[in-house]
Amino acid sequence: MLSSNIETFIGCDKPYNKAKHVLFGAPFDSTTSYRPGARFASKTMRAESYGIETYSPYQNKDLEDTKVFDAGDLELCIGDTKMALDQIEAFVAGLIKDNKRPIMLGGEHLVTLPAISALSKRYDDLHVIHFDAHADLRDDYLGAKLSHATVMHRAWDLLGDNRIYQYGIRSGDKSEFLWGKGHVYTQKFGFDGLEDTITRLKDKPIYLTLDLDVLDPSVFPGTGTPEAGGVSFNELLNAIMQLSNANIVGFDMVELSPPYDPSGISTATACKLLREMLLSFSI
Amino acid sequence: MLSSNIETFIGCDKPYNKAKHVLFGAPFDSTTSYRPGARFASKTMRAESYGIETYSPYQNKDLEDTKVFDAGDLELCIGDTKMALDQIEAFVAGLIKDNKRPIMLGGEHLVTLPAISALSKRYDDLHVIHFDAHADLRDDYLGAKLSHATVMHRAWDLLGDNRIYQYGIRSGDKSEFLWGKGHVYTQKFGFDGLEDTITRLKDKPIYLTLDLDVLDPSVFPGTGTPEAGGVSFNELLNAIMQLSNANIVGFDMVELSPPYDPSGISTATACKLLREMLLSFSI
Amino acid sequence: MLSSNIETFIGCDKPYNKAKHVLFGAPFDSTTSYRPGARFASKTMRAESYGIETYSPYQNKDLEDTKVFDAGDLELCIGDTKMALDQIEAFVAGLIKDNKRPIMLGGEHLVTLPAISALSKRYDDLHVIHFDAHADLRDDYLGAKLSHATVMHRAWDLLGDNRIYQYGIRSGDKSEFLWGKGHVYTQKFGFDGLEDTITRLKDKPIYLTLDLDVLDPSVFPGTGTPEAGGVSFNELLNAIMQLSNANIVGFDMVELSPPYDPSGISTATACKLLREMLLSFSI
Amino acid sequence: MLSSNIETFIGCDKPYNKAKHVLFGAPFDSTTSYRPGARFASKTMRAESYGIETYSPYQNKDLEDTKVFDAGDLELCIGDTKMALDQIEAFVAGLIKDNKRPIMLGGEHLVTLPAISALSKRYDDLHVIHFDAHADLRDDYLGAKLSHATVMHRAWDLLGDNRIYQYGIRSGDKSEFLWGKGHVYTQKFGFDGLEDTITRLKDKPIYLTLDLDVLDPSVFPGTGTPEAGGVSFNELLNAIMQLSNANIVGFDMVELSPPYDPSGISTATACKLLREMLLSFSI
Amino acid sequence: MLSSNIETFIGCDKPYNKAKHVLFGAPFDSTTSYRPGARFASKTMRAESYGIETYSPYQNKDLEDTKVFDAGDLELCIGDTKMALDQIEAFVAGLIKDNKRPIMLGGEHLVTLPAISALSKRYDDLHVIHFDAHADLRDDYLGAKLSHATVMHRAWDLLGDNRIYQYGIRSGDKSEFLWGKGHVYTQKFGFDGLEDTITRLKDKPIYLTLDLDVLDPSVFPGTGTPEAGGVSFNELLNAIMQLSNANIVGFDMVELSPPYDPSGISTATACKLLREMLLSFSI
Amino acid sequence: MLSSNIETFIGCDKPYNKAKHVLFGAPFDSTTSYRPGARFASKTMRAESYGIETYSPYQNKDLEDTKVFDAGDLELCIGDTKMALDQIEAFVAGLIKDNKRPIMLGGEHLVTLPAISALSKRYDDLHVIHFDAHADLRDDYLGAKLSHATVMHRAWDLLGDNRIYQYGIRSGDKSEFLWGKGHVYTQKFGFDGLEDTITRLKDKPIYLTLDLDVLDPSVFPGTGTPEAGGVSFNELLNAIMQLSNANIVGFDMVELSPPYDPSGISTATACKLLREMLLSFSI
Repeated sequence: MLSSNIETFIGCDKPYNKAKHVLFGAPFDSTTSYRPGARFASKTMRAESYGIETYSPYQNKDLEDTKVFDAGDLELCIGDTKMALDQIEAFVAGLIKDNKRPIMLGGEHLVTLPAISALSKRYDDLHVIHFDAHADLRDDYLGAKLSHATVMHRAWDLLGDNRIYQYGIRSGDKSEFLWGKGHVYTQKFGFDGLEDTITRLKDKPIYLTLDLDVLDPSVFPGTGTPEAGGVSFNELLNAIMQLSNANIVGFDMVELSPPYDPSGISTATACKLLREMLLSFSI
Repeated sequence: MLSSNIETFIGCDKPYNKAKHVLFGAPFDSTTSYRPGARFASKTMRAESYGIETYSPYQNKDLEDTKVFDAGDLELCIGDTKMALDQIEAFVAGLIKDNKRPIMLGGEHLVTLPAISALSKRYDDLHVIHFDAHADLRDDYLGAKLSHATVMHRAWDLLGDNRIYQYGIRSGDKSEFLWGKGHVYTQKFGFDGLEDTITRLKDKPIYLTLDLDVLDPSVFPGTGTPEAGGVSFNELLNAIMQLSNANIVGFDMVELSPPYDPSGISTATACKLLREMLLSFSI
Repeated sequence: MLSSNIETFIGCDKPYNKAKHVLFGAPFDSTTSYRPGARFASKTMRAESYGIETYSPYQNKDLEDTKVFDAGDLELCIGDTKMALDQIEAFVAGLIKDNKRPIMLGGEHLVTLPAISALSKRYDDLHVIHFDAHADLRDDYLGAKLSHATVMHRAWDLLGDNRIYQYGIRSGDKSEFLWGKGHVYTQKFGFDGLEDTITRLKDKPIYLTLDLDVLDPSVFPGTGTPEAGGVSFNELLNAIMQLSNANIVGFDMVELSPPYDPSGISTATACKLLREMLLSFSI
Repeated sequence: MLSSNIETFIGCDKPYNKAKHVLFGAPFDSTTSYRPGARFASKTMRAESYGIETYSPYQNKDLEDTKVFDAGDLELCIGDTKMALDQIEAFVAGLIKDNKRPIMLGGEHLVTLPAISALSKRYDDLHVIHFDAHADLRDDYLGAKLSHATVMHRAWDLLGDNRIYQYGIRSGDKSEFLWGKGHVYTQKFGFDGLEDTITRLKDKPIYLTLDLDVLDPSVFPGTGTPEAGGVSFNELLNAIMQLSNANIVGFDMVELSPPYDPSGISTATACKLLREMLLSFSI
Repeated sequence: MLSSNIETFIGCDKPYNKAKHVLFGAPFDSTTSYRPGARFASKTMRAESYGIETYSPYQNKDLEDTKVFDAGDLELCIGDTKMALDQIEAFVAGLIKDNKRPIMLGGEHLVTLPAISALSKRYDDLHVIHFDAHADLRDDYLGAKLSHATVMHRAWDLLGDNRIYQYGIRSGDKSEFLWGKGHVYTQKFGFDGLEDTITRLKDKPIYLTLDLDVLDPSVFPGTGTPEAGGVSFNELLNAIMQLSNANIVGFDMVELSPPYDPSGISTATACKLLREMLLSFSI
Repeated sequence: MLSSNIETFIGCDKPYNKAKHVLFGAPFDSTTSYRPGARFASKTMRAESYGIETYSPYQNKDLEDTKVFDAGDLELCIGDTKMALDQIEAFVAGLIKDNKRPIMLGGEHLVTLPAISALSKRYDDLHVIHFDAHADLRDDYLGAKLSHATVMHRAWDLLGDNRIYQYGIRSGDKSEFLWGKGHVYTQKFGFDGLEDTITRLKDKPIYLTLDLDVLDPSVFPGTGTPEAGGVSFNELLNAIMQLSNANIVGFDMVELSPPYDPSGISTATACKLLREMLLSFSI
């Protein structure tokens, strides 16, 4: 007769042993240099997900038909960056061992690094598709090697040249763009060329990392470093649906910062995008 | 010598007996399942309407030239849904008897039902044009027959097939879309086909219900259930101006929720849209 | 290896069959006449409870040593008051049958009625101790018999004269105070006489209902109807610790409204009070 | 059959010709040097006044038994300080001519000056009782003679020595306190000595100006210049009730700033204080 | 060894004597009729500017390569409009004398008037390009000649016919549009014709005044009078880059109101636009 | 002729070489486990300090008569806790070498550790007086040795037994209180015994660390972990004035979190307390 006290993202309530995909939160934002708050994203998204439907009129699919287990949030060591990243990597490695695909909700962008690290040990030829406003290609940031602003440089340390494809980039210092030219593919401002990339990477294992600030701040105000001139919701949705043909072996969504989202539209938009990603990649 | 203490929406200060149109507020949101607050919309719109002008450079018309009486807000029974709806219906019936056209400010979307009910007793062939993000076609919601989520199904109970035309719909559960196919006309995502509908319904009496969440959340964050991927302000404005050729016998505007509008842009936008609707339909 | 996705109030994680006390949320606020939002209280309290400790330096006791199961939130019918109250009563009746003591988190104050109703069927001589800023003794409110403003009159309908003891009352219309004189005990402004009442009711079964707006708005701003001149945190804490000698057969905490608590101090205070109540009544 | 669209402070709905007291708003804050917003106070108080009762359990009196007309807000020239003050003075002079007692809701504190000016022409021996955190005794402020920070010096220009009694003062520059010693009576931090002053001024016509920031910021956060260490609600309420024996010929309440009151407790407290002042002075 | 306590807009840290351009704040909003707050814009922009980069991927230029001195904020006489405007004009005149180009951060739009006045004494044939949602062409506003709503009429008093070019205008009363036809060039809704104007004014000295509410409220909610239907960020950015070919002798940015920008996107957008303007006009 | 762009706390504008006291900000909050934001405290306090006066009517002293240089904020390595603490310690060591007394504005409480470390190298018999709601005596927190929750344990590592005196403590886990008994002096809930401590420590060098959450949340809502039942403003002010007789060789103020202070009263209170501390300890 009792009501349940388990809280999951809407529709992600399959038991672990029957699930093919595992959703989890990585509530970490200790290297955020400007406005912290991304640590609250995953909890807030779960609570607010009941404001959307499980059915998508865009894809004519329903979350009820997916096999996703929501594992809740990792309890991370706040204040010791290295230790927190190790905890995330161990968790993802465990999922891979159990043949589950990882779906991570940040947290700040640095949490992407241990997920890529764990997957790169499983997939030799792992590629990364990266949607973001910021290049995140610094080698260090205010002296720190591990930072949201260096995460794609660190990913390159692991993967090497020609493995990272960036879209929507519209901010960085001059040196990032210069360095990037030799090492990663960077499409400024939007998604031009994404279709070609998908074709080229056909069958390659791809990790998709979505920094939600790729969206225009009008659409997505609730983020630590809003950057005007971003893509629209429909442009991002189209990109996600194009990727349904790719071999996505894991993905994440980072940098929602609920304290900067007083009207709740950013959280609602993140929930809707997660639904569409789950329907596009995990069904 | 005294300043007045009567508060109306800007320019809607004609006396009742000289007015052709009567604006009133229905501050009810008791069935709101997610985030309440629409009860504050009408009061907030009146106060904030002094931030806009009475003149429209879009239509080159002025509210000073309209004949609208603002009757203030109904005092509704909070907590007893049936009783509150009856109060609204009685008020609208009184307006119809006095040959005034009703213009209602919600409140949540359920307040549309008694307005349609009263008008359907006056106009046998009443049609409804419905702008919304949500289909609102459920038969019941968490056990309740009277709910914001069932309002268009209840309207269909009164009007029957082929009387309801929905535009901008981008959310609903699968069964709503399936049921809808046989009973109402639903245009997903935007206003495609609106012009044809207007032509087809030429001279038919039309009730227009505008759920403001049809707008994209970037344009209109201040609503209970924001849904990404909506129409732009200019698209909605164009739709309203197209409808100036239709026989609008009443209209409403619902689901502005001021507590979720900290910057005030949603209220300002609602005020501007009301001005344009008054200039398009009531002059 | 998986982290848990069960969310409970801190320290209330005993299994149902081993628990003596059951905590649950009743997220209902449909009759709130002024500023809704209490529906979000229980969920918010669970999430924020991790900002406090399980140990109380006031009572030198620890929540780890209590036997409380947190059952999560009831899923109530929004918009149909009668149906929602019936759902709460059925749930409490089930707990009583299983020999569990109910601990309810509102929601608005009307949710207290079905809890009292269920307990009054188990305990013939049930008494109510009521901490509140408002008398809540109206017979109807804007025409509605079931309302947060009538809840104590409805409780009197069930229990009769001399069963209800009110403390901290500092708002009501004149007729409420007049009617109350013959039917309930009312202590205005504070807790004078509480000790005597506890002595007098020794061994009687008592339901304690704590409307958090009994606190001064400076201490507790996040409530629908803040009323200046309330009791301090320490006064309320002392009253709670005095009641550790009483026979509390159930209790609730109502009217926290997170949308009106931007700094979070009201939620943090409610969490601390719940800890102290659990340690005082449930150990 | 129509609902009314007149908005008054609760219970202040007597017609002008039957009223003895006239309440009005002076929505002016152009000289506010720090954080503007007091211009919104009177409108917000009217809207929120419906969250309190007309009956006071402190004084056992009811607003329904007072004779107060709420004249709404003056429409003041924003940006031209001199012109705005002249408009206020003319309005108050008109009330005096009609034998009505003025009750003004600011706005910033400078609006007190024209009210004192008008009343000093009617009452040769006008005295001022001034509750405030700030001395407001500067001779000029950043070059301006007319400023919220100079208002009591300007009042002294009109009234001369030993006419102004300040209570609760806890902020000012050194020169203000020095100048004040020879010209006004200043009680720092609280209300010590108020009873003696009331006795001494027996029968003298008194204007009471209540700058709400005399309250502690915990009780009253919503003001432009919050100053810690203020009086409690009960201390202020007691002072108001003591003044029921004085000959109050007019009074005001200033410096509520709704934009800095996100929880609404300051507005609710101001409404309750206005009720108590009306019941103490105007019945 | 000490860290610096000088605060400038990012990258604007050249010494005065080496600078060609001087940035300064004019924190004045006393004539704002609706929602004040623009006085906080310049301070907030400086603090938040560290959330953007000095490098622009749009123009491939870097603020490090500009010669801009940030002089901080003027200390203006609040409450005496005339005196405050005189202070601004004196400051700008001093810059002109030292052969520096003025770059002003408002404040409300009225601060543009003294800048134009000072420059019109240096340049006989000064022209003004004006981006705004509002025509600002009233002759007086609520009796005041000096107001944000009259600023372009006052500029015309100084410059005469055919000197002012307005873009993006979508609000005004009817008389403003009528008067404007004979005296200024007004492009409604967007930037059509801007390129022709730039060609026609080739070599003429131009003052550019950017009222940020020309942007759509979705992009820029944090302003006193948001007006739906505005230009997009990219449209405004393109207009700014087109103007790099014009002879801009000074420019300003006005009407950012941080209190209405809870997510911070408006401030971030203003900072980015200022960077692009500095790179387009001052390098 | 130019206005200055140097921003200091009000009255703290003496040149470094003439100053005896140096104020600086340590904007670090990376180990904050609950709600970050303290990193914004020092910047916000400087900006808002212009809302208070330099003169104190409590102590009849004026900041103009102090010798304080405000060095601005340290630029700390975000995300690498060890490196950031080293930067702070190096800065404080430099001040000590120059015979300046350090006054630090946090940031979270962990920033106190490097200040104590630097001073303990200068003063063998350094004692610490600690005002706080939380004991902060854990040995590790979620695995981290360096954390806001362990800072006093880490200080004890440096100083040993009987050197740390805590006041106002009302939160901690059971083990902290147990461990504390043998190693530090802990006064729960308030300042009882402070006077004796001051007498006992006469002439000993004392570092005072003020965690502002020792204040009641009603007085000070803007902090990461609000804890009901705290001391009042006047109680804290009295404690500060008692300490004017002690040998304070350095002090700090930590845990103001502006994002949780929407009304600004916490920042205003922190500014006023800093003024009183400067006047009490640094004149």
